[in-house]
Amino acid sequence: MLYVIFSTFPDEESAEKVAKEAIAKRLAACIWIVPGIKSYYIWKNEMQEDKEVLLVAKVPEEKVDELTEFVRKNHPYEVPEIIGVKADRVLPEYLKWAKEVCQGEG
Amino acid sequence: MLYVIFSTFPDEESAEKVAKEAIAKRLAACIWIVPGIKSYYIWKNEMQEDKEVLLVAKVPEEKVDELTEFVRKNHPYEVPEIIGVKADRVLPEYLKWAKEVCQGEG
Amino acid sequence: MLYVIFSTFPDEESAEKVAKEAIAKRLAACIWIVPGIKSYYIWKNEMQEDKEVLLVAKVPEEKVDELTEFVRKNHPYEVPEIIGVKADRVLPEYLKWAKEVCQGEG
Repeated sequence: MLYVIFSTFPDEESAEKVAKEAIAKRLAACIWIVPGIKSYYIWKNEMQEDKEVLLVAKVPEEKVDELTEFVRKNHPYEVPEIIGVKADRVLPEYLKWAKEVCQGEG
Repeated sequence: MLYVIFSTFPDEESAEKVAKEAIAKRLAACIWIVPGIKSYYIWKNEMQEDKEVLLVAKVPEEKVDELTEFVRKNHPYEVPEIIGVKADRVLPEYLKWAKEVCQGEG
Repeated sequence: MLYVIFSTFPDEESAEKVAKEAIAKRLAACIWIVPGIKSYYIWKNEMQEDKEVLLVAKVPEEKVDELTEFVRKNHPYEVPEIIGVKADRVLPEYLKWAKEVCQGEG
């Protein structure tokens, strides 16, 4: 099984730093960075409108906890948004590659 | 549990209006707007290619029906695309914050 | 039930070609193309940083295998990323439309 983990960052620099380190540590098979997101939410009773960048990590299930903890520890926010969605239909060859690369092969 | 709700809009203005109102009504904890999407679909037997904007709402499960109904009622399209995906791995601190903010706290 | 299928492409041209053909063959109800993605992954032990385009197909469950096979056969990569996530909360009118359009109606 594969998980798709979403987390937003304040800028591309902080997102890319975490992305590259997570990949180097083999905590995710592949990570996308999607720039130009606008985020709306309430913080201390006031509407916030922030420019953000979205990090999307594709992670074998066995690495989800480790990847989540790594992002949390290295994230600029105190309470970062880290949400995981199960991908239960994955091209078998891609899933095989993803698992191998996260075990240090490839 | 948290849900990620996707809905596309014809432009940033209509998407932002719905996003801000949904957040103000505490129907979603956080909403992203992703600009610059291209959509392809068939309508009355003809290929359509539209420029659209993607709204992505992070919603505690107990608010999904209310948020879906709100988006439907305030959407410029007759049959809007409103699709929800379950996020079953969410950072606990973030999930706690999302639930509280949708109950009017924070 | 509806599935959301993600696949990244090297450029908009190859993504749009596959998107339009999949829609014309009624293998998906609607397809988004999201430009300007950056992808990080390891290939032959080296960190890769590619500019990519994300294709997102909304597919009735009964068409998921056919759509996946079509994307795999027409994709420029040898091992393409094709991952599917279940959308279990879909606006009923939209789901009805999606099923009909994939059966050649509408």
